[in-house]
Amino acid sequence: MKKLSMKKMCMLSTLLVTTFGATIAMANEGQAKHAERPNILVILTDDMGYADVGFNGSQDIKTPNLDQLAAEGTTFSSAYNVHPFCGPSRAGLLTGRYPHKFGSQFNLPRSSRSGGLGIPVEETYMSKVLQDSGYYTGAIGKWHLGEEAQYHPNNRGFDEFYGFLNGGHDYFPDKFSKQYNSQRKQGLDHAIFGYLRPLEHNGKEVEETEYVTDGLSREAVNFIEAAAEDKSTPFFLYLAYNAPHSPMQAKAEDMAQFPNIKDKKRKTYAGMVYAVDRGVKRIVDSLKATGQFENTLIVFFSDNGGKPNLGADNGPLRGRKGDVLEGGYRTPMFFHWPNKVPVGRKFNHPISTLDLFPTFSHLANAKVPKSKKLDGKDILPSIQAGTNPRAGEMIYAVRHRLGFSEAAARKDNWKIINRGELDNNNQWQLFDVDKDPSETKDLAEKHPLLVREMVAEMEAWSWTNIQPKWFHIHQEGTQWREQSMPRFHETFSLSTK
Amino acid sequence: MKKLSMKKMCMLSTLLVTTFGATIAMANEGQAKHAERPNILVILTDDMGYADVGFNGSQDIKTPNLDQLAAEGTTFSSAYNVHPFCGPSRAGLLTGRYPHKFGSQFNLPRSSRSGGLGIPVEETYMSKVLQDSGYYTGAIGKWHLGEEAQYHPNNRGFDEFYGFLNGGHDYFPDKFSKQYNSQRKQGLDHAIFGYLRPLEHNGKEVEETEYVTDGLSREAVNFIEAAAEDKSTPFFLYLAYNAPHSPMQAKAEDMAQFPNIKDKKRKTYAGMVYAVDRGVKRIVDSLKATGQFENTLIVFFSDNGGKPNLGADNGPLRGRKGDVLEGGYRTPMFFHWPNKVPVGRKFNHPISTLDLFPTFSHLANAKVPKSKKLDGKDILPSIQAGTNPRAGEMIYAVRHRLGFSEAAARKDNWKIINRGELDNNNQWQLFDVDKDPSETKDLAEKHPLLVREMVAEMEAWSWTNIQPKWFHIHQEGTQWREQSMPRFHETFSLSTK
Amino acid sequence: MKKLSMKKMCMLSTLLVTTFGATIAMANEGQAKHAERPNILVILTDDMGYADVGFNGSQDIKTPNLDQLAAEGTTFSSAYNVHPFCGPSRAGLLTGRYPHKFGSQFNLPRSSRSGGLGIPVEETYMSKVLQDSGYYTGAIGKWHLGEEAQYHPNNRGFDEFYGFLNGGHDYFPDKFSKQYNSQRKQGLDHAIFGYLRPLEHNGKEVEETEYVTDGLSREAVNFIEAAAEDKSTPFFLYLAYNAPHSPMQAKAEDMAQFPNIKDKKRKTYAGMVYAVDRGVKRIVDSLKATGQFENTLIVFFSDNGGKPNLGADNGPLRGRKGDVLEGGYRTPMFFHWPNKVPVGRKFNHPISTLDLFPTFSHLANAKVPKSKKLDGKDILPSIQAGTNPRAGEMIYAVRHRLGFSEAAARKDNWKIINRGELDNNNQWQLFDVDKDPSETKDLAEKHPLLVREMVAEMEAWSWTNIQPKWFHIHQEGTQWREQSMPRFHETFSLSTK
Repeated sequence: MKKLSMKKMCMLSTLLVTTFGATIAMANEGQAKHAERPNILVILTDDMGYADVGFNGSQDIKTPNLDQLAAEGTTFSSAYNVHPFCGPSRAGLLTGRYPHKFGSQFNLPRSSRSGGLGIPVEETYMSKVLQDSGYYTGAIGKWHLGEEAQYHPNNRGFDEFYGFLNGGHDYFPDKFSKQYNSQRKQGLDHAIFGYLRPLEHNGKEVEETEYVTDGLSREAVNFIEAAAEDKSTPFFLYLAYNAPHSPMQAKAEDMAQFPNIKDKKRKTYAGMVYAVDRGVKRIVDSLKATGQFENTLIVFFSDNGGKPNLGADNGPLRGRKGDVLEGGYRTPMFFHWPNKVPVGRKFNHPISTLDLFPTFSHLANAKVPKSKKLDGKDILPSIQAGTNPRAGEMIYAVRHRLGFSEAAARKDNWKIINRGELDNNNQWQLFDVDKDPSETKDLAEKHPLLVREMVAEMEAWSWTNIQPKWFHIHQEGTQWREQSMPRFHETFSLSTK
Repeated sequence: MKKLSMKKMCMLSTLLVTTFGATIAMANEGQAKHAERPNILVILTDDMGYADVGFNGSQDIKTPNLDQLAAEGTTFSSAYNVHPFCGPSRAGLLTGRYPHKFGSQFNLPRSSRSGGLGIPVEETYMSKVLQDSGYYTGAIGKWHLGEEAQYHPNNRGFDEFYGFLNGGHDYFPDKFSKQYNSQRKQGLDHAIFGYLRPLEHNGKEVEETEYVTDGLSREAVNFIEAAAEDKSTPFFLYLAYNAPHSPMQAKAEDMAQFPNIKDKKRKTYAGMVYAVDRGVKRIVDSLKATGQFENTLIVFFSDNGGKPNLGADNGPLRGRKGDVLEGGYRTPMFFHWPNKVPVGRKFNHPISTLDLFPTFSHLANAKVPKSKKLDGKDILPSIQAGTNPRAGEMIYAVRHRLGFSEAAARKDNWKIINRGELDNNNQWQLFDVDKDPSETKDLAEKHPLLVREMVAEMEAWSWTNIQPKWFHIHQEGTQWREQSMPRFHETFSLSTK
Repeated sequence: MKKLSMKKMCMLSTLLVTTFGATIAMANEGQAKHAERPNILVILTDDMGYADVGFNGSQDIKTPNLDQLAAEGTTFSSAYNVHPFCGPSRAGLLTGRYPHKFGSQFNLPRSSRSGGLGIPVEETYMSKVLQDSGYYTGAIGKWHLGEEAQYHPNNRGFDEFYGFLNGGHDYFPDKFSKQYNSQRKQGLDHAIFGYLRPLEHNGKEVEETEYVTDGLSREAVNFIEAAAEDKSTPFFLYLAYNAPHSPMQAKAEDMAQFPNIKDKKRKTYAGMVYAVDRGVKRIVDSLKATGQFENTLIVFFSDNGGKPNLGADNGPLRGRKGDVLEGGYRTPMFFHWPNKVPVGRKFNHPISTLDLFPTFSHLANAKVPKSKKLDGKDILPSIQAGTNPRAGEMIYAVRHRLGFSEAAARKDNWKIINRGELDNNNQWQLFDVDKDPSETKDLAEKHPLLVREMVAEMEAWSWTNIQPKWFHIHQEGTQWREQSMPRFHETFSLSTK
């Protein structure tokens, strides 16, 4: 990838023509503040368990490069994803809003080309805000937020995109390109499983030749090197590895790093994570080689909890991907930024990936459109001070299932949870998840007023959730309508106990 | 309350900068016509029965001050609310449209903070149109149209607001502030019943010290006095008493006015109405003292019918609050405006509170946005001439219940009504409500073509009703979807007889 | 009808004032290209069967004038309507989009005045694009796309409208005006069946005195003559005969043309078609007399398949109006344009009436708004070259029924079809409709991959279909919701076989 400086210059000249005075003023302001605007690098993994990195306590999986960054920065014990599965989690991350507020509570349709749908364009992405503020922006890896032109990364604030648009991908090019070509020869196109399609670069198909995790790391390095050509322009890179999401495919040499792991699933999973960690080393090396390491904020996390049946380990947390139990959406996370983010600190107050949009846009001194609603908050001051950024405030999670919903809310050390028919007979439980992250001791009877207050607040929040704009498969939609969902009168009832 | 003249001056200077020529033109026009622009005072009561004021025939409740205004003005025997219960009735009044057209057919969510919902901001209120035309505008009392910033009276055309945002309130400050503070100490906020919360003035909590009806009357007087400081600016005051809505709480001294009433409920109810009447005296006195009485149009009415089980009396009318029977939405009403509105006249043609928006905006010579849809009409010329303002035209009422709807339409002396499962086995009845306000003699078989025509017209009207944007409680929404509502094929069927 | 030259001049002067430079440029461009901009005449019949014109093989019905035009032009063996019944077919034609994309999958409400609904105004009609490009535009006959002001032809791009707004009409003025007047005298208005109402000219009721088909032909001639007054302005005429739609009413003299037809229904039907053909002669004569025949593109077709129970004949095609079988939406069609469209050619590649919008607007050199989505393509180059305009691309049809949908897609010679509960137990069939237009030999088992690919592509297309904005009768809507429609998980399932 090369930086599109011509394109940028054209954009700039247009601005100069249309609003000359204002542009000059902005440019001066930008220059003056440049030294304070860091590069921002988000490293996202996919379906990785809470305990699957060394810095979060993994005993069997080695992640030395992630661990070193974590040790030099601040780690988070209570960082929450916006949703316990992929699509809505990423939609929440990039928009800074709960996906329930804009009808994106479900993954996009299973159809290989996602049927013309995507996250509503009215929802501005953080990438657009950063791009508009002068950042050089890139997305690498998995997208999963819409495949039509208007939903494409290049139209949602990313100067560069390298990766694949749907929700996952096979890892070995030899294998997937052969299958793809074979099916094409049989006359298929729309019916081909998306995981087999060629990767792309800014809308043009490319022939990836490396194990995909390695290919994505390579492109991240390319992006970082291109960004270094003009250091007066900071960069924002959203590096969304699909590892260790299924299909479970690891390189033999990576699996060989784990002779002590006997379980085949766990061994494969470990190899997939290890490939990410290898890539992180290349990225850090590149940042250092290009003199950008000191001025780059690195934020690492997973998009939701792991799936133990595929080899993941959520450690002490109950539940797994898809649940509103802690194991479903509490994620390993660190911030790394020399001299700006505390070193070796563990941050225990609850935060949300919703907070990244306001945090990043504040760092970038970026102008957020007045009409833009944001559900999170700028947390950097709290991270630096070690204080609770939302004392007394709630972080929500609602995951719809067939005919009922799972709902949970965290406030300070407390969490209320109602998993509908899955658990405890549709009654609200209360856990002190600071002391009891495994959600074993229900304290609801001990603190009935607290439960009443938290449920009342969450119910008020729920009123502005809108009907889903799509479902992952047609059947989910039919069932949604058949069951007259959302049945929130059941979810928010306190009377069933 | 003090008039915000600074704020107004700022607004004016902005206008001058942006559209200099146009503003000058408007100002001249405004000055020339000023003498003709009256103050407008709406006095609204809550859940008051058709027969619960002296001027409408009450034998036991005294309302001497209302009665005097009524005697000096024109009373209406067939004035209809837009809806037989609170929220949609007020939404219809302020927007001038049937709430079924913008999804506001139900009261806002029960949740104490209404969950971020409110009457859609696209629906311009009469207050905004009057404010934009140069009126000094105030809302005092109950709001019930949305509690978030964008739905707040101060953002819907009211310079001043004093009262409470939700659908009702306790009356004795000693009692409700004690309960409120106690619950706050227990850690509650969202779970506190809204009736106990502090009142507010322009978004800031205040400590009301008087019986609430008296407090509202006091603030009305304050507003009228503030308005008198600059008589070149006419005022619009929307005084929405919550009396005599539940909770049934009257002052002992007011109840003592009714020694002949033995029934405790009726006695309390009478005391609550009497407090309103006392307030009206203070208001009239203030209008006179400030020299504004002659130039003020006073319009008095209730928001829907009374609840006999709480002590109300709908007189000869069948039904009660919530029904589309006459007792549900025909309201006592008078217009008072010296030398402009006929004195001692009883106006018997049907009118609707939908008519107030166009009537007031015409009086104010206000500019109604071109895109603004209005379902009513300017009725002042008809009132002055004693003619039917909508000969041959319909006034509708639709109230949704669990799995069916009540529907009614008035045209001239005729009313068709179908109460679904509640009455007459889902068949349309026809009453001559001019002669038979008690709806006792069904004339449908005698005038089958008239019924056919009126039902056909109402069915056509119903096609543009949209799905509700919210429900009062989640359960209502689930049931709405479970029942595949609205089941208008049943409502508008003529074949079941 | 007279051409409203004054109105046009006013519009032009407005343009000149507002955007002087641009208008001059356009005018020059327009003059330069004028010679190339043809008049466009669409002649549409209603519910006419595939085999009910001579040029498509009718043995008993004579259509000599249509046949001559067909012989001098290009006929189409595989032209498809957008939908197998009236409203959505016409909505698709005029908007150039599948009506499923803007909620217009059903006919407008049965109510005589259509209840304030119509094709969403956001969907620009071809008439508007042509009008904006300088065409003189007229609509004559049946509208059926909304009766309120904003949906009226005069507000959707037609300078002239003569006809009726609802979905059909009686043919004999003596009869229908008598019935109408009688019902009016009885006090009816909204309850009068729309087929009896007076015709209108640009919003004003007129007293039509001729058999309606003859009246429409007369007005077409008037329009053509008015257009000839200023030949520098090309015309677009949308002549939508309601014949041979029910009620089945033919002139005795027209039926007398078919002494060999003994079946009364068929004889009446034949007379109704013959009246259209007589009208076409008058129109052709007028075009010739005014010197416009050479520069006019004539496109003839029906809006959907015929109803054999009313006398129509769909020839070899299976099914009838309403079905997604070929007999439901494959239509007779010809293009006639001297020296521009091949003479005596039969065009066998599949095309859609969706293609007319882009084809016409290209011929008119008209500017299509950038935001305008079009589902068809400019097919004139393909017609001239005899090539397939959409090789490998799909034409869709989805018709919703009670609790299921019929779905079909044509690609090249292939058609997949799933009629839900109506046929073959909700399984997809595959026909080579080029060779087997009667859809008799299911080849699905022979070409499973082709079926899989086509169904996958159609399923992706279906994801952006939105919920209907209205239903023809309320009951259809209630049932739609009761059945949790659309049940596309059943429609697009491949697993039931």
